[in-house]
Amino acid sequence: MKVSIITIGDEILIGQIVNTNAQWLANKIAQTGAENVYQSSISDKKEAIFNELDKTISFSDIIIITGGLGPTVDDITKQTLADYFNTELVVHQETYDYLKAFFEKRNRPFTESNVAQAMVPKDCQIISNPVGTAPGMLFTKDNTYIFSLPGVPKEMKSISESFIFDFIKNKLDETESQVMLYKTLKTFGIFESHLAEKIGEFEFLNGNSLAFLPSSTKGVRLRISVKADNREIGVEELNRIKNELYSRVGEYIYGEDDDDMLSKVGELLKKNFLTVSVAESCTGGMLGASFTDVSGSSSYFKGGMITYDNEVKINQLGVNRKTIIDHGAVSEQCAAEMATQIKKILNTDVGISITGVAGPSGGTDEKPVGTVWIGFAFGETVKSIKYNFGKHRGFNRERAVSAAISILYNRLKVIK
Amino acid sequence: MKVSIITIGDEILIGQIVNTNAQWLANKIAQTGAENVYQSSISDKKEAIFNELDKTISFSDIIIITGGLGPTVDDITKQTLADYFNTELVVHQETYDYLKAFFEKRNRPFTESNVAQAMVPKDCQIISNPVGTAPGMLFTKDNTYIFSLPGVPKEMKSISESFIFDFIKNKLDETESQVMLYKTLKTFGIFESHLAEKIGEFEFLNGNSLAFLPSSTKGVRLRISVKADNREIGVEELNRIKNELYSRVGEYIYGEDDDDMLSKVGELLKKNFLTVSVAESCTGGMLGASFTDVSGSSSYFKGGMITYDNEVKINQLGVNRKTIIDHGAVSEQCAAEMATQIKKILNTDVGISITGVAGPSGGTDEKPVGTVWIGFAFGETVKSIKYNFGKHRGFNRERAVSAAISILYNRLKVIK
Repeated sequence: MKVSIITIGDEILIGQIVNTNAQWLANKIAQTGAENVYQSSISDKKEAIFNELDKTISFSDIIIITGGLGPTVDDITKQTLADYFNTELVVHQETYDYLKAFFEKRNRPFTESNVAQAMVPKDCQIISNPVGTAPGMLFTKDNTYIFSLPGVPKEMKSISESFIFDFIKNKLDETESQVMLYKTLKTFGIFESHLAEKIGEFEFLNGNSLAFLPSSTKGVRLRISVKADNREIGVEELNRIKNELYSRVGEYIYGEDDDDMLSKVGELLKKNFLTVSVAESCTGGMLGASFTDVSGSSSYFKGGMITYDNEVKINQLGVNRKTIIDHGAVSEQCAAEMATQIKKILNTDVGISITGVAGPSGGTDEKPVGTVWIGFAFGETVKSIKYNFGKHRGFNRERAVSAAISILYNRLKVIK
Repeated sequence: MKVSIITIGDEILIGQIVNTNAQWLANKIAQTGAENVYQSSISDKKEAIFNELDKTISFSDIIIITGGLGPTVDDITKQTLADYFNTELVVHQETYDYLKAFFEKRNRPFTESNVAQAMVPKDCQIISNPVGTAPGMLFTKDNTYIFSLPGVPKEMKSISESFIFDFIKNKLDETESQVMLYKTLKTFGIFESHLAEKIGEFEFLNGNSLAFLPSSTKGVRLRISVKADNREIGVEELNRIKNELYSRVGEYIYGEDDDDMLSKVGELLKKNFLTVSVAESCTGGMLGASFTDVSGSSSYFKGGMITYDNEVKINQLGVNRKTIIDHGAVSEQCAAEMATQIKKILNTDVGISITGVAGPSGGTDEKPVGTVWIGFAFGETVKSIKYNFGKHRGFNRERAVSAAISILYNRLKVIK
């Protein structure tokens, strides 16, 4: 079952925003077992929409269109769809009533353009929008199902989750179509080539595919893709390959699909009743922000200090002035003292520090831009590790945070 | 001059990653004056690539293909392009020599698959890759120029910046084609509808378009689009409209295009020789991370405390225990004390604090999830402002940071 995603509107097309809608939809579609075959972004001009629909219908079983359903007068998508499917716009009473009540309640005038919002093409199935005013629409043509959704992410997601993904799954099962299934295993601490060597021969894949997806900050992901005659066979095959990979390289796998290392670290901290604090210089709070991005982190993350200025490192965190004079703030010694001090001051089990040259200025021959020391204090152990994460400021700060989290993960996972 | 972008590969197609390459390219293309007309993502199957090229060539003057040029054996894109353009793969001596030296220098074996990396289609123009091994390629067919670039963002960007954008600009000027020009003005502190009222009649647009792009955290952007017979006329028209908008709503405009409020805040702090520190609870370091995202921020940003745990608020930051017992940590009083204390402890001119209920748990009737107090201490002034930023943890934390920065901006911009 082939699915295509069409995004309408200038904001994506001229690169003002990233197309996160398409990514979200494609990811969810992949989870239904249907096959993503095509994505496009086009302008909201009638000719572009007509041509794109003609073409896409010719090779898709299902098409999801997002965008172009806003309240403004110049938004012609709805009219264009009505024209394309040879129908006309009529008032959708339910939406009309809802909108009218909405405006009356807020003492705001109910205008012509609000009435336009309640208009829908006559010959389509209306799919209610649980969180907004513009409903979704379902058209059919030449055995292809065409959904049209608002572009507002919250509304697009809500309509998709309440209707579309189940619709796709049911169609797949009803028609006993081939399924396309994926599973991603996340590894850390091993290079792509070593991972391939350790996995060894690939005959166990049995014609299915395994992709190696390296990332510069988050390890190598292994993506299994299985195409099967039906869901049952597919799931069985996916599990067989997955288990085989665990038996070969399981020690490097820390999670699957949406798992991230940070939540794994959180689980391990909780399980071992450990608390953590941070002292950050070049990352300016990014590590703390990452920890607290996980809800429930308050049970193990206590807080920290952002010691961007050296006087703050000395006066508030308690790093020796002599350490900074003798070795500099970006040094093994300074990182170790920062980690030890924050652990002591905040009375936590673990203290982590980051100090580096984020750039673009401030680099020297000895400590070029991208040099980062990460300090780690746990019980009686204190160590500092040196990295060079490259010249790009945004990137080296991100990598420093990932490295700090993985140091913690590696230490935690060996606790018996 | 119509430009299309085609992305090849499963990672985008099945939604594992967001298509940031297409956004980056489209944004840069928009700056050349050429018109973005189409973007697509397809699989790396031969049939898909052939069909997509047939179609896209029919309506594009320039096509940029990214992805599918990696070193792995199963990467068939290069062969497919050679087939499509009726040519064959040959060794590109320059790339071959470069690769061979690269591997020898590192004492790594130079294998069959490395030789494949140095193969290129015979009848294409090779565009050197300043930062990697896979070169860019330029084909022509039916008066359309087709670029093929590696998908690695750093390499794609480097080849584009060193060759492609100038190529597009030159073609535009040589052929005296129509240009499409954009300018975005960024406003803050005014609703979309009020902005429209204040701008008044739109006749000054003279047939060009003005889009209102609201964002939930960063104010309303005004995007001017001008289509003109040549660059000179276009630039003149763009400036005329821009000046007209400044004269009507200039007081709400804080920047243009890539400007962000944070760098404006940085400029104002520097200009007035002011320093700032932060005390963060629910945002866990995000505000500090934002400040330090700007290079050169060390001249005004000193540091702060991440006081996620209440004991840290009391023991390290010096908030009164009684304040938290009587009013709670998410309160006007606590936010004010946090801001005052961090300003005092770090000896800065400004102290900013954020304390809130990020959720998903921890909300009450009185203080539902999304309730955030922002404290602001500047000179003798101390104030706290209450917000409700909604239930989504990632989102309400982000909005809290934006609000804190805009409070600071509003205060700084009135300094004479």
